[in-house]
Amino acid sequence: MAAKVITLLSDFGLKDPYVAEMKAVILGQCPDATIVDISHTVDRFDVRMGAFILAAAAGHFPLGTVHVAVVDPGVGTERRAIIVETRHSLFVGPDNGVLMLAALKAGLSHVYAIENCRYMLPRVAVTFHGRDIFAPVAAHLALGAAPSSFGKEIREYTMPKFADAVLEKDAVLGEVVHVDNFGNVVTNVSSSMVKRLGVQEKMGLEVEVGQEAVRLKLCPAYGAVAKGKPLIVLGSHDFLEIAVNQGNAAEHFGVKRGDRVRVRRGS
Amino acid sequence: MAAKVITLLSDFGLKDPYVAEMKAVILGQCPDATIVDISHTVDRFDVRMGAFILAAAAGHFPLGTVHVAVVDPGVGTERRAIIVETRHSLFVGPDNGVLMLAALKAGLSHVYAIENCRYMLPRVAVTFHGRDIFAPVAAHLALGAAPSSFGKEIREYTMPKFADAVLEKDAVLGEVVHVDNFGNVVTNVSSSMVKRLGVQEKMGLEVEVGQEAVRLKLCPAYGAVAKGKPLIVLGSHDFLEIAVNQGNAAEHFGVKRGDRVRVRRGS
Amino acid sequence: MAAKVITLLSDFGLKDPYVAEMKAVILGQCPDATIVDISHTVDRFDVRMGAFILAAAAGHFPLGTVHVAVVDPGVGTERRAIIVETRHSLFVGPDNGVLMLAALKAGLSHVYAIENCRYMLPRVAVTFHGRDIFAPVAAHLALGAAPSSFGKEIREYTMPKFADAVLEKDAVLGEVVHVDNFGNVVTNVSSSMVKRLGVQEKMGLEVEVGQEAVRLKLCPAYGAVAKGKPLIVLGSHDFLEIAVNQGNAAEHFGVKRGDRVRVRRGS
Repeated sequence: MAAKVITLLSDFGLKDPYVAEMKAVILGQCPDATIVDISHTVDRFDVRMGAFILAAAAGHFPLGTVHVAVVDPGVGTERRAIIVETRHSLFVGPDNGVLMLAALKAGLSHVYAIENCRYMLPRVAVTFHGRDIFAPVAAHLALGAAPSSFGKEIREYTMPKFADAVLEKDAVLGEVVHVDNFGNVVTNVSSSMVKRLGVQEKMGLEVEVGQEAVRLKLCPAYGAVAKGKPLIVLGSHDFLEIAVNQGNAAEHFGVKRGDRVRVRRGS
Repeated sequence: MAAKVITLLSDFGLKDPYVAEMKAVILGQCPDATIVDISHTVDRFDVRMGAFILAAAAGHFPLGTVHVAVVDPGVGTERRAIIVETRHSLFVGPDNGVLMLAALKAGLSHVYAIENCRYMLPRVAVTFHGRDIFAPVAAHLALGAAPSSFGKEIREYTMPKFADAVLEKDAVLGEVVHVDNFGNVVTNVSSSMVKRLGVQEKMGLEVEVGQEAVRLKLCPAYGAVAKGKPLIVLGSHDFLEIAVNQGNAAEHFGVKRGDRVRVRRGS
Repeated sequence: MAAKVITLLSDFGLKDPYVAEMKAVILGQCPDATIVDISHTVDRFDVRMGAFILAAAAGHFPLGTVHVAVVDPGVGTERRAIIVETRHSLFVGPDNGVLMLAALKAGLSHVYAIENCRYMLPRVAVTFHGRDIFAPVAAHLALGAAPSSFGKEIREYTMPKFADAVLEKDAVLGEVVHVDNFGNVVTNVSSSMVKRLGVQEKMGLEVEVGQEAVRLKLCPAYGAVAKGKPLIVLGSHDFLEIAVNQGNAAEHFGVKRGDRVRVRRGS
């Protein structure tokens, strides 16, 4: 019997009862679910941050995992609730893009509207679809219900607007997509992009980031430079990451999410 | 076989080892317990906040769940340790009121003192009854021990002082009982109180909150007003909630927990 | 069948996907693992804080628990990855001392280098051994793999530098090793040290801490003094703890981790 893994991601924070209420509903319907928190401290209403974090984590979970993401500024409005079926796993949440970055990576196959009240709690609070719709739907999916039993397949759904890095003549123009807990600056410049520039490990890269143009070495580890010195690494999600060994690169370079990054092979 | 769900709530925070120590003790005695955190970032020593969060979450858990709440400024003093038996579930913690709001909602039937050392750890630290008394007691309850086997039934116990909303001639006088992670201002004015005012959805309400008297529409969702605009909704726990669409109502109106709120039907 | 408990401790924080990625890998290889978070808000790169928190929590877990600790400023460098076998449990992490305080308490028997790639993920990111090495190694240990199957036994490994309290003529000279969420000041002065001073409960102690020399009573509970008053207790890990009843002792006395504390019997 496959494990019934359900993950939760939200912007609910850690003080309020909301996350626990979702878990309570899931356990009531699927007592042997293994529930894993991905993050509940996504910035409030920040669909892009939620999408990024979900996409980073989801692919590592076992086949058949059900991922629930509730970053949902439009809760209770006309925005749809959806299930996204992929080759690898299932995603449940609002149709605002939060699921889609992860779903595309996982091999999106079908998207279904959640319309069947039979799978929701008897009373649906307009302010808390996480508890009253998404949690019970996830539990039923974990129990084996077919995604198509929740509602009709839909062909139009919200795709998140994430910039792709662009290959220029001798450079890659990308963007800061995340600043992590250590201040590491995660870009959308992938290892394959880097290869196309002809860059190999330990080579220098010229990096324009924030107000600065600096020369950084592509290093095999944070500790390859002295403590407090900046470097560039291929991070754990296979994207270029600007870091400072045991320091905070975002502060060091004064950059924030959304800032442009241009990378070229060092001369 | 019923699932053995044990929930934990405390003001221990998330950095220290204390929560993990409680889970360790529980798993040592009841290896197949499903442990769910409700919240560990209750404000330090804030019994009322703990009681509110526990009461919001507890009712959604399966029948027979054991809830442990440790907001316990009197740990090690003469304050009693108790088990509260209700129709729906069991509550374990100090006799300071933190359990009682949830227990009343769940149909309080009996309260027992925890006196039987057989169910405690061999050495009880005066500063950490959560680990040495409440955790092992919860594990034994989950394993099926009768609440009456832990100590004598008691008739006098601490009830938390929570204001009830009061129906005035043409208004309800209530109080802010919680400000959530989004800045939503949760009151103690229930939907039944609102009905008695003759208010229906989409009607205007006159609301006195903080220094202001404002007219807010009872909305079906946060997104029913423009971004940044205030509204009033029936929140997910069936109480009136003052909110700002994608904003922070507590900051917007300058209100905090304990502030008075008066609501009347808009003219 | 023994429960497969795996604990996680890190400085990853709670926003990023990193902790969830480790859990995903563990569940992929050991679906019935019970994963418990000890703490993920250890100060960044603070090996000593990680070691202290792990040592406080680990001993309470069931026999055979696998503890993973990732406070790892040297990730990707030559620092070794190790498994520490003790009489009570297993520890997995970097060879920088973070495991050793807990391992010594648990009865250290053997230390093994992690070298066998068969137990790692196929591609090991240089920045994230937690996910690609420590998590799968922990899963395999929980499944019963012998520690010696991961690599050769090693005799030299990093021991953390923790000051031991020193018995002087009529005093104990110790150090603040932790300030907890409540502001309690945890020292390295053990109950046995206190006994050697001839101090018993309710006796006065002269305590030099920070810039102050104060007389504090060794109390049976925080609540033994009035609210806001300082006291000294034997804390839940059997070390002297300076506290303020329902207040913050670290702020009260202006002390921080690493500060000296001298305790003598009150005259």
